[in-house]
Amino acid sequence: MIPTVEILSTGDELLTGQVVDTNSTWLMDRLWDLGLMVRRKTLVGDDRGDLQAALREATARADVVVMSGGMGPTEDDLTAECVAAVLGVPLERHEPSLEAIRRRFQHFGRPMTPNNEKQALFPRGAAVIPNRFGTAPGFSVQLGRARLYCLPGVPVEYKGLCDEAVLPALAAGLESVPAGRVVKLFGLGESAVDHAMRPLMDAPENQGVRFGYRAHWPEVHVKWTVGGEDATARADRLLGEVRALFGDAVWGEGKDELPRVVVERLLSRGERVTTAESCTGGLVAELLTSVPGSSGAFDMGVVAYSYEAKSALVGVPAELIAAHGAVSEPVARALAEGSRARAGATWGVGITGIAGPGGGTPEKPVGTVHLALAGPGGTAHVARLYRGDRDRVRRSTAFEALFLLLRAMR
Amino acid sequence: MIPTVEILSTGDELLTGQVVDTNSTWLMDRLWDLGLMVRRKTLVGDDRGDLQAALREATARADVVVMSGGMGPTEDDLTAECVAAVLGVPLERHEPSLEAIRRRFQHFGRPMTPNNEKQALFPRGAAVIPNRFGTAPGFSVQLGRARLYCLPGVPVEYKGLCDEAVLPALAAGLESVPAGRVVKLFGLGESAVDHAMRPLMDAPENQGVRFGYRAHWPEVHVKWTVGGEDATARADRLLGEVRALFGDAVWGEGKDELPRVVVERLLSRGERVTTAESCTGGLVAELLTSVPGSSGAFDMGVVAYSYEAKSALVGVPAELIAAHGAVSEPVARALAEGSRARAGATWGVGITGIAGPGGGTPEKPVGTVHLALAGPGGTAHVARLYRGDRDRVRRSTAFEALFLLLRAMR
Repeated sequence: MIPTVEILSTGDELLTGQVVDTNSTWLMDRLWDLGLMVRRKTLVGDDRGDLQAALREATARADVVVMSGGMGPTEDDLTAECVAAVLGVPLERHEPSLEAIRRRFQHFGRPMTPNNEKQALFPRGAAVIPNRFGTAPGFSVQLGRARLYCLPGVPVEYKGLCDEAVLPALAAGLESVPAGRVVKLFGLGESAVDHAMRPLMDAPENQGVRFGYRAHWPEVHVKWTVGGEDATARADRLLGEVRALFGDAVWGEGKDELPRVVVERLLSRGERVTTAESCTGGLVAELLTSVPGSSGAFDMGVVAYSYEAKSALVGVPAELIAAHGAVSEPVARALAEGSRARAGATWGVGITGIAGPGGGTPEKPVGTVHLALAGPGGTAHVARLYRGDRDRVRRSTAFEALFLLLRAMR
Repeated sequence: MIPTVEILSTGDELLTGQVVDTNSTWLMDRLWDLGLMVRRKTLVGDDRGDLQAALREATARADVVVMSGGMGPTEDDLTAECVAAVLGVPLERHEPSLEAIRRRFQHFGRPMTPNNEKQALFPRGAAVIPNRFGTAPGFSVQLGRARLYCLPGVPVEYKGLCDEAVLPALAAGLESVPAGRVVKLFGLGESAVDHAMRPLMDAPENQGVRFGYRAHWPEVHVKWTVGGEDATARADRLLGEVRALFGDAVWGEGKDELPRVVVERLLSRGERVTTAESCTGGLVAELLTSVPGSSGAFDMGVVAYSYEAKSALVGVPAELIAAHGAVSEPVARALAEGSRARAGATWGVGITGIAGPGGGTPEKPVGTVHLALAGPGGTAHVARLYRGDRDRVRRSTAFEALFLLLRAMR
């Protein structure tokens, strides 16, 4: 039997737009890996009546309820109290938790206030979930038809306790955990991906496979989970089929991130890249250097925004700019080749374009971008017309540059 | 009477971790400006039973329910059908909407499929909300005790229809719309801000003022709304008091964004900045050039990651690096001054540091950063030890650099 799961979060800050509840998105993703989909998610404020009503409703519908928030030391933190009230049991002090909280305060040299003792109070009969990531322990109880898990809302604590206690308990209750795979694509729209995937999704041998997408723009991820005895083999067979289906558009799997894949490829080949960016304004360099250890593959880059900077920093001839305009194939090539020569790098990326909202002309509208990649075998060039606002044009361009570089290193 | 508001969203993609529901956070923020707080938010999947139950429950509790999703052309889009079922009325075709959808498809030169006709079907008696941002119109009906608004889930359409139809209708029903103000701070933790704000928040003359924070890291925003007759005057008086309270830590108000404030200040003074970045890897340049029109204030920057790049691109003497190490005050100063001289800019930003996770030593642990700002009056320097991961160290550093520059242009 596949359990029904609901998520319940409490906290005024979640209802005033102060905080985006990213915890639940993260948990939904993890549950998907177990073959579970959340049936309903509810957010309520720090109000006894609302919280007790939501607890009663969720635990009457679901087999598992994962609740977060309201576990702090303040008057607004009502979770343990409300769970106890709905259960009809008193709160009881849990001495090991109180001791752990005391030690934590000692360790950080902060005074423990009487408030913090509240974080060691749990409904009678609750199973305490120790928290080595923060102060507030979690707990679980049987309530209504559901196993109810109550966790602190601080993301590092929430995720830590989910990983250590909630997800293993859920997985242990399943007859089998499905095998999940993710393939990451670039340069295709979600509808094109969906269209291409249809025959695989409708194939009789893939009955019972759960497919999904995540438009992690400018990437698209295709994912699926397979249950049953030969789950791993079936999931891996699909991996081969999906890779074959999308060919060159595939750049990664699983937890891969494009900047990291590019940097690791460079490092494994003992090669370096340099950048000369105009419209992306340093975004390509920023993405590359976001990867730990990138200094082995990247040692310099320039942002050449003006005509003068393109000439002064990369040696683009002023006549070239005058003849073709700054946003042109020859200038992109000169940026790539000039920066590569200057840095003595294996690869040189040159980018020039019109990110908008101003600067467009009928011949070169906003979104016009020229990318060039200079390398050992010569210089490749692509022209693009991206849609969207300034941020979207810049991000599309930067990821396209990384993708071009990765393709060139096959 | 202040109405009770609930949010209801539908869509399997919201329950599988594929999509973060940012629409509701946005709406909560807007409602806060009207003095309204959302009482409950519910997410359900594309399931008739779940959706009808959630509709019945929310419209029995609240005065206003804002629902999103399920308005597309596919079989999974169930909103109009489920609202009609709960109301006990049939769906009816709305000819003006069908005509508008047809025109939209003609305009974009795409064929209209029979599916799309579904988007012109509404529960009998519904008030249609035209959608000039996309295909699917919204609608509103009276259901239970609530006015129910049903909107498409695509963010640009959702926000557009909220701004054009939902929020004005809500505001019109209020006796008075409170005056809201936001002050934006840098360099202070949320708890320090809360501590400093306490006397203002507890002052008798501020009774009835609703205060809130948003930790928009590495910034903190303080906001408040005031109702009643002299709302604007009271909100503005508080603006003066909060500004006085935090002094130099205040960099903006309302919708201000730090990179934009910095670029606008530069443009208004006719000045330019250049950057020489090591550990931030181009992030400062990227933030500056994210602002439309920044080319008037920024024309070049370099990312000098290696020792050699620092010397070759900015002229940092190799002996200086050998004597003090690359992460040091003298090298930060040389980066700032060298880049300023080279670019002929008014301001030069120099950044060197250890973003981690590797590269730390007992003397210079991960998070050690030296920032320098060279300007007409000399060169300022700050040393910092930031906590957190690589991304956090880099973002803290980049925003600190922008903040330093802004402070220098008072």
